[in-house]
Parts: sequence; structure tokens; C-alpha cells
Amino acid sequence: MWPEPLAVRLPLVEEVARMPRGFAAGAVAAGIKVSGRPDLGVLVCRDSASVAATFTQNRLPAAPVRLSRRHLELSEPAGGGRYGRARAVISTSGCANAATGAAGERDQRELAEALGEALGVPAESTLAVSTGLIGSRLPAGRLRQPLERLVGTRIQEADAGLAALAEQMCTTDTRSKSASVRLQLSARAGGTASVTVSGVAKGVGMLHPRMATMLALLLTDATVEPATLRRWLEPIVTRTWNQISVDGDTSTNDTVFLLASGAADERPVEEDGEAAGELRAAIEAVARSLARQQAGDGEGATTLITCQVSGGGDDEQARAVARAVVSSSLVKAAVHGRDPNWGRIAAAAGTAALRAGHSVQLEEARLRIALCGVPVFAGEPLPFDAAAVSRLMDAPEVVVRLDLGAADGTGEAFGCDLSERYVIENSAYST
Amino acid sequence: MWPEPLAVRLPLVEEVARMPRGFAAGAVAAGIKVSGRPDLGVLVCRDSASVAATFTQNRLPAAPVRLSRRHLELSEPAGGGRYGRARAVISTSGCANAATGAAGERDQRELAEALGEALGVPAESTLAVSTGLIGSRLPAGRLRQPLERLVGTRIQEADAGLAALAEQMCTTDTRSKSASVRLQLSARAGGTASVTVSGVAKGVGMLHPRMATMLALLLTDATVEPATLRRWLEPIVTRTWNQISVDGDTSTNDTVFLLASGAADERPVEEDGEAAGELRAAIEAVARSLARQQAGDGEGATTLITCQVSGGGDDEQARAVARAVVSSSLVKAAVHGRDPNWGRIAAAAGTAALRAGHSVQLEEARLRIALCGVPVFAGEPLPFDAAAVSRLMDAPEVVVRLDLGAADGTGEAFGCDLSERYVIENSAYST
Repeated sequence: MWPEPLAVRLPLVEEVARMPRGFAAGAVAAGIKVSGRPDLGVLVCRDSASVAATFTQNRLPAAPVRLSRRHLELSEPAGGGRYGRARAVISTSGCANAATGAAGERDQRELAEALGEALGVPAESTLAVSTGLIGSRLPAGRLRQPLERLVGTRIQEADAGLAALAEQMCTTDTRSKSASVRLQLSARAGGTASVTVSGVAKGVGMLHPRMATMLALLLTDATVEPATLRRWLEPIVTRTWNQISVDGDTSTNDTVFLLASGAADERPVEEDGEAAGELRAAIEAVARSLARQQAGDGEGATTLITCQVSGGGDDEQARAVARAVVSSSLVKAAVHGRDPNWGRIAAAAGTAALRAGHSVQLEEARLRIALCGVPVFAGEPLPFDAAAVSRLMDAPEVVVRLDLGAADGTGEAFGCDLSERYVIENSAYST
Repeated sequence: MWPEPLAVRLPLVEEVARMPRGFAAGAVAAGIKVSGRPDLGVLVCRDSASVAATFTQNRLPAAPVRLSRRHLELSEPAGGGRYGRARAVISTSGCANAATGAAGERDQRELAEALGEALGVPAESTLAVSTGLIGSRLPAGRLRQPLERLVGTRIQEADAGLAALAEQMCTTDTRSKSASVRLQLSARAGGTASVTVSGVAKGVGMLHPRMATMLALLLTDATVEPATLRRWLEPIVTRTWNQISVDGDTSTNDTVFLLASGAADERPVEEDGEAAGELRAAIEAVARSLARQQAGDGEGATTLITCQVSGGGDDEQARAVARAVVSSSLVKAAVHGRDPNWGRIAAAAGTAALRAGHSVQLEEARLRIALCGVPVFAGEPLPFDAAAVSRLMDAPEVVVRLDLGAADGTGEAFGCDLSERYVIENSAYST
């Protein structure tokens, strides 16, 4: 009775870090984090990689965001900082290098120069991501030596190198986030090719739709032009990272880089065609898995909330409703309490147009809601066993289904419950 | 050094309920709330009152919202349901009568008919407000007798009647919300006149900008045309109720009614002129006081957060930045922990354009931030005594000041801290 809520069929994903060919990575503890855990990482491409990027839409973007945008634009002026080529990405955690003024800008440039020297490439061919406390300075001078050691002796082409990078990116994440798909690209001139799509990501708080999301690196060893990567990345981010919310705050540092090394198969994957469809689906599957891992590991979270919407006026409207539901503090608190209080879901759906800033077709008489598979509303309240649904909600994932009965639009969004621990973690004295 | 953040000079407000002339009110316990506390109230106008209204923008408006809009439109078709005339307002608490389908619509009409009969006026001359659990039915049949008793013997023209109504509207509010201003309208033909502007309101959760806010009744005994009242009400709501946020959720039931009985002074206050300016400022002062009381009594709140912004591209942009700051979960949690983590304030300001859906001029180099009167950022981080600011934050109100350095726009917004108690109150099993 309920339509399929997903617009795209995606391949299965393994939640592990597999290094695609042509990349190497590693991480060390360089003293940024007071905990002494790894806080300085690099990803290096053997040759110049194609890159597509999306960045935060926060109006006070961090220094690493501004630097990466500039460097991409230098490598490919037509890309306007959204795609280009690069040789390496430096990752720092424990300090966001945001709201640090001109001094923060100099610190970030110094780091890029140190990385360029260590690798023997121009500083402008490096990119940067950063996460941590906003308003504090990066100890750029103290990072030179650890960076040289890291590049000289610690980076590796094995899967462990990518796993180390995933670990280094974490701040209050309770686990590192990785996802991989291995696939055979369909036969083209020269036969099939086996390629890998992988991703690592971090993100626990300051996570919210209408961003270009939190930190994520997507890697593949297929060959794809930068502009093509960028055209693929945008709708994928729209359907995945822009559909997660932990706390309604959009960070200053959000960055997604999608890098293609070309090391597994030299034949370019063209914008269209069968191989492009397969590769695009693999990239989306990895992105979706990482986004779900991020939402499920939101600060203080105990449960992933997945909202799937069908029957929307169009996909954008369906996504707006799904986002509104997972963004509602009251829905999040109800899920935390295993309370099948579907009235809050209906009310949150009703705010979709206000939150999204565009029109959303929604009529009470046509709306249907199911909670953990149990129908609870169909134009009017339905009788249901509240205690039984409450028991179903006591699970690692709670699925909320809505059908808007307007047209064929579908969409999904991912969030987490709101727990006392979110408040405790974020109200502890941190300055 | 810092410009004045308020656009309008407002008279002083007393936080008490004073009944303007021409009105009577009262409340009883009718068995909707399981606690046995007052849950049925009425406000009656001796003669037909001018009314202006704003309602929730939630796309699933509750039955009382739909009924009030229809009745206002019947009384004054040109008003489109936003202004008109009325004789009474019925208030129910403990049940929102939202997401209840056609049955909920019938329940609300039955209540209006019962009120009309008890008062001897047409059902269509009555309005309704309601607050409580979404998705549960109003026991309309069981409310007839208590309503007759209330109208027959319990309503009064004394201040105590209005205080009883303020008390009845509460749900999880820890205190009832009232505000009053008494003023002399400037001399016109026939001399000066002494009038009263009062308001009562409720609201603790599901409170967020871009609504036509939570329940509030504003009363005056001056004489004003309905269309004039409506023109005054809109910018006042924009500057007050649309600038408060508790949890980012916009309710299905939000309603503000502004009623003018004309009982204190028969001479109409014209749209413009000195008396209009005085009366408008008094209405705004009462609205602002109620909005601040609502924000400060947000669920689980211990501190009112006031964000005042100057130097905005225009007032709308300044208000958007102020809203973004008080809406940020991370700022709210930091205030709860008395943590002068101003980086979160900067990051939240940077999300204003995303949250508001329109452009906001904001440049890191021109931005200034002060926390509890202490400058902490001016284009770059400033040194300050964090322990001292933390002690200043341990107060009933925390004031965050921003100057955007763009132009002359000013605005303010009101929120509250995010505490463990918000989560506990809203995750308790309520179905």
C-alpha cells in the first residue's frame, strides 16, 4: 500500500575503510587535542586527483574552507572553487580555525606550505579540512615537525592508512565513520574494470540541513573529470548529507571532498552511460552510509531516526517534510523516551514549508503516518497498541514513514534522539 | 560605542493582569486536564469588540484556528479571517484539538454553539484558542455544563477574572504570563482619555520564529477599527513573538488575538496621529513583555537569553541574526553551562541567512560580539576573563550583543537555555 520511499536503487555498503588505489593516508598525534589522541592527518594522491567539493553555507566559513576554495579555483578557474585538481588534503582536529581573523588565515597557509614542502608539491595543490573548537588558534608552528614525520614515514597505501585518517578526524564522535563499495564497471572499450569507492567522515554536533555538510572525504580509483564529479556530487549531497540533522546548527567548517585518482582504470568514466550510473550509485551509497553513521552518532544519541516520505508534491517537498520531522526537538525527545506521540510528528511535518522556505503540499485529510511499521494516522487518528509501539521504538533505529498523498515525490532524512547527554556534553565548560 | 539596539521606545510594563473596561473573564476545571486544574476559560466582551488576529503558519492548523479564522471572515469578509468583530473567546487547555480530522472540527463547532447559547449570541460571534496534546479528542459533550456554569456565575469584570484566564491557559508553564500598561491618550476633541492595554499568554514548548506565535490575548478598552488593529498587530508580532524560540518547533495552535472593547473612550483612535502612536507603543510593550515571559519560561529553562543586534543591513537582517543566535542548540547549551564559548555565537550568527531563507550581510572582519557586557570578539578574538564572564552568566537573563557593522538595522530575539530538564520533560511517556 505504501509506495517505495527511495528514488534511487543503491548497492550494498560495507562500513569499513578500504583504500582505493592511488591514495595513501595516515595520522599522528601532534598536540592539538589535549587528550593526546591523533589530531593531524594527511591524504596524499600519487598523481594529481580530480576533486569535487561542497562547503558550508555558514556566512563565517573557517580558514581551511576559504583556503581550499581558493586552491581549487587556482587549479581550475572555471570551477569557481567547487572542483579542480589536488595532490593532498591535510586534516586537523581539536581546533576549527574558525572566527580567528587574519591570523587564522596565516596559520592555515603556513600549514599548506609545510605540507607542500614535505611532499615536494606546490602549497596550492593541497586542500584542508578542520574540526574542533571555534575561535581558538591553530598552533601552526608546532605542527611542522610532526607533519614532516607523518609524510616521511607514517602514511601508507594500505586500508589501515585510511582507517587512521578516519580516526584522526573524530572529536566527540564515539566511533569513526567509514564506508566502502567495490564494483565492476560495465564493459566498455578494453573490458570491465574493478574499482573502489570509499569514504571517511566525522560529525556529531553542529549538524543540520542546508549546509554543504560536515567533514567527509569520498575517494575512488576510477578516472573521472573534475567537472563531472562535481555534477554528480551535488544531487548526492542533496539527498544524503543535506538530509541529516543533529541539532539544527550549521557548522563553519563543513566540507565534502570527492577525489578520483584514476589509478584502477585509466579509461575515463564519461558523464553518462552505464558505467557512470554504476559509479554514481556507488558514490551515493557510500555518502548515504556515512550520513546515516553521522546521524546515528549525534552527540548523546542512542537511536538513529530515519524518516521516509512518499507521496510528496515532488522530491524536494518530500525531503523537506522528512527533514522537518527529524529536526524537531519534540519528536527527538519523544523518540528518546520511546513515546509513540505521533501528534508531534504530524505537527513537525506541518512546519516543513516554514523550515524549508518553499511551498509544501500537505493536507491533513490525505496524510498517513506509520511509526515502526504501525499505522497511527490516516486523515484521522487510528487506534493502535501504544505499549507495543513503544517496545518497537526501543531499537538502534526508529523508522517514521509518512505518505503525503499529493503526488510521486519521495525523500528521506536522518536524525537522532535528543537525550540528556546532548545537553550535558554541550553545556560542560569548554572555553 | 555600541548603537542603541531597539528601534522603538516602549513604555514600562507591569507584569500583572489588569482587566480593561468592557471585558469579563473567568475559568473553571472541566476535566480536560487529568491534573484537575482549570482547563476551560472564557473572555466575554460586553459589546462587539474589534479584533485583529494572527495564526500559526503550521500547515496542519488545529480545529480552533480554522474555526476562528472562519468566524472572523464571516464578521468582516474583507478581512480574510485576519480581522473582524467578536463577542467572546473560549479557551481550552490540556487538549490541542489538532490532527483530529473531521471529528475534531465538529467538537470545536459544538463548543462554539454551547458558548453562543450560554451568552445568547450567535456561535459565529465567538472565537477559540486551545493548547495541549496533539491528536487527542476534546470531550465537547462533557464541557457544556461547566461552560454554562462558568458563563452564568463565574466570570467577572475585575482583574481577578483575567488572572484566572491566564492561569487556565497554562499547560507545563511554571507561571502564568500577564502584562499591562495604563496610559493617557493625548488630547483630542473631548480631552484626554485614560485607557488600559493588557495581555495574557501561554507558551513553553513548540515555540519558534516564523509563526504567528503561541496563545496570547491582547485587550484594550480604547476604540479602534478592526482593520487598523490588524495593521498595527503585524509589525508588532514580527518584532516580538516571531523573535522568540524555545525549541524550533512551530505549533499547530499558535494564535494571537488583539481585542478592543471601546469601553474606556468612545472616540476612535485613528490609524495615525499622536494617540495612535501612544496606543501602538503600549500594545507593543505588552506583547514584548509577554514574549519575554514566554521565552524565559521555556520548558526546562533557567535563564532568559536576550540577543540584541545592531549594525544590520536592515532591521529584518538584524532580527534574523538575533533569531539564529537564540535558536542555536549549542548556544543554548553553552548558556546553560555558563560557558562563555562565544565561538558558538559567531557560528550561529553565520547561519542566519540559511535559517531565514533570505540574504544577510555579515562579514567576519566587521563583526563585534559582547557577552554580558564584555567584548569578546571584534574581527578577531579578544582577550577576556572567561571565569568572570562565566560568573556574570549565572543570572536570570543573559544578554548577547552583536554589531554587524553593515548599516543601521536593529533587532532583538528572546530564547532560553537548553537544560537536561527540557529533555526529561519532553521524553516522558505522554501518550
